[in-house]
Amino acid sequence: MKTWTPSPIAPPCEESQTAARARQARLTKPAGSLGRLEDLACRFAGFQRRERPQPPQAAITVFAADHGVTAEGVSAYPSTVTAEMVKNFVAGGAAICVLARAEQARLEVVDVGVDADLSALPIVHAKVRRGSGNLRREAAMTPAECAAALAVGQAAARRAVEAGATLLIAGEMGIGNTTPSAALLCALTGALPEVAVGRGTGVDDSTLAHKRRVVADALARFGQRRQPRPLDVLAELGGLEIAAMAGFYLEGAASGVPLLVDGFIATAAALAAVAIDAAVAPWLLASHRSDEAGHGTALWALGLDPLVGLGLRLGEGTGAAVCLPLIRLALTLHDQMATFDEAGVSGRDA
Amino acid sequence: MKTWTPSPIAPPCEESQTAARARQARLTKPAGSLGRLEDLACRFAGFQRRERPQPPQAAITVFAADHGVTAEGVSAYPSTVTAEMVKNFVAGGAAICVLARAEQARLEVVDVGVDADLSALPIVHAKVRRGSGNLRREAAMTPAECAAALAVGQAAARRAVEAGATLLIAGEMGIGNTTPSAALLCALTGALPEVAVGRGTGVDDSTLAHKRRVVADALARFGQRRQPRPLDVLAELGGLEIAAMAGFYLEGAASGVPLLVDGFIATAAALAAVAIDAAVAPWLLASHRSDEAGHGTALWALGLDPLVGLGLRLGEGTGAAVCLPLIRLALTLHDQMATFDEAGVSGRDA
Repeated sequence: MKTWTPSPIAPPCEESQTAARARQARLTKPAGSLGRLEDLACRFAGFQRRERPQPPQAAITVFAADHGVTAEGVSAYPSTVTAEMVKNFVAGGAAICVLARAEQARLEVVDVGVDADLSALPIVHAKVRRGSGNLRREAAMTPAECAAALAVGQAAARRAVEAGATLLIAGEMGIGNTTPSAALLCALTGALPEVAVGRGTGVDDSTLAHKRRVVADALARFGQRRQPRPLDVLAELGGLEIAAMAGFYLEGAASGVPLLVDGFIATAAALAAVAIDAAVAPWLLASHRSDEAGHGTALWALGLDPLVGLGLRLGEGTGAAVCLPLIRLALTLHDQMATFDEAGVSGRDA
Repeated sequence: MKTWTPSPIAPPCEESQTAARARQARLTKPAGSLGRLEDLACRFAGFQRRERPQPPQAAITVFAADHGVTAEGVSAYPSTVTAEMVKNFVAGGAAICVLARAEQARLEVVDVGVDADLSALPIVHAKVRRGSGNLRREAAMTPAECAAALAVGQAAARRAVEAGATLLIAGEMGIGNTTPSAALLCALTGALPEVAVGRGTGVDDSTLAHKRRVVADALARFGQRRQPRPLDVLAELGGLEIAAMAGFYLEGAASGVPLLVDGFIATAAALAAVAIDAAVAPWLLASHRSDEAGHGTALWALGLDPLVGLGLRLGEGTGAAVCLPLIRLALTLHDQMATFDEAGVSGRDA
């Protein structure tokens, strides 16, 4: 197995952000009247190190893996759906495929730990193991497996950037993966299972209560250690695709590319990435607030304010992909609107 | 002056909505996991009278007019900005021009009452009068002028639909127009000026307090009449572009085309349209919740739930235009995603 070597991360450019803010004040509109779209344009000025950033070329990488904790009956769907959905990605029928086509984004699917033989499929084969351990009773991954999964994500980010991506989206497919995400949220922020555990793909009340006990048991099992290292938390309570997403974010930030974060699982992976290296944080952009219970808490812990709240809870990177046009329009407005001087329009209180 | 003759309005197709809802349940995703995007697809199924609606062709009509009430000092910008911004629309430098280009939407600018000679500009010339009356002290329009402005909007909707539009956006440019919009909101819903009056393009605290008194005075002047007819409310307290937008909505609904409502002024016009003919209501779609104070109340009065809240308060139709890609993506997902059967993916609890 490959191991993971972190890359150094530099911050976005503050001077370019300041220049963009000044340009926004000169555009023919009441000051601040484009709201979050102004903020987006200025953030991208910092990312791209220029006053007038250009609409980004997005790449979406979907990491797929299975979860031993599904043996506890925490999901509304059987584990076999993970592999079935990977086939649906290849066939182009999944939601993220439709969105990637519509937004002309590069789409790559990576098997980092699906519990099935997918070797015949035209995807990236980087299986670390067939499904994680059952985190209620054992470590989800060994430290070496976790490092290998981080390296899988790192390599995926490098491929995307080399292919020309200037914005990265990590998506995921893994039946059961809201459970490790909730466990990570609890372990990394101190949130209680009552807050962090939600219905995932749609479990009923009694399964929700059971899922909370499973997460509480996992935390109790792991909780003997004081001040655990973030990499240990990720290995014990995470999942293969979640570790890969964290590695993807870390390498994307090191490459100077913004990271558009999808829903609950992606945000848990971002929390892990920030715990590993806080320099990732300024490269994160929240896309949507999902309907999954713990997502708001996870966003809050990262200081992220999502662009939209459309009631999505599909995963795969879909919530992030849906926000791509908003970013494109924000940057196009910033670039193409006339200034008061150019248009001969009077300023306020003139 | 032309007068206005209302057209009959039929409802959207319920059978197509029901069929679309059934299709959503068969697509390869957890039930309901596309949230508001599922609702959008089903609404458009009703609008287009088919199970799988196609992404709409949008037309944006920006109605421009001035307001006598600016003599009361209710705006942060001088009235001359209305005509200057119309020139900016023609030059393509305004925010709505950038968005219309980016979204390939038809854009038309209509002078329904600008207090300047714009006859040299390549826009639609339908000036009813040069600016409305000062609604604090007199009727904004005579009943005949109001009917003429409604007819201007009606004709604009007909032109857009004849040019192939399958979704209509009404935008506006009119320095001072949050004041008549607030007055309409109060008169049509019983809201108090403290709730309905906001900062518009950005007035300070003392001007905001003054603006509330101006609206309260207008309501007191008009308030002698019991149970006024909606057309009288619009004529007394509205504005030329607001009446035109109401006529635009009424004719759009009569043409069977959905109406994507922009911000506060557009929503006030929609309130007037619904007061005139309640059959408009099922053709309205809210786009964004603007930062202007009364917008939430106006949306609530119409029973509309906006798609996004991006902190916009620019007008011109921009908030609606920003939501066009969300609609396009919602309909593309609905049309192109595989069903569980097509993809061979197991359903829940399988």
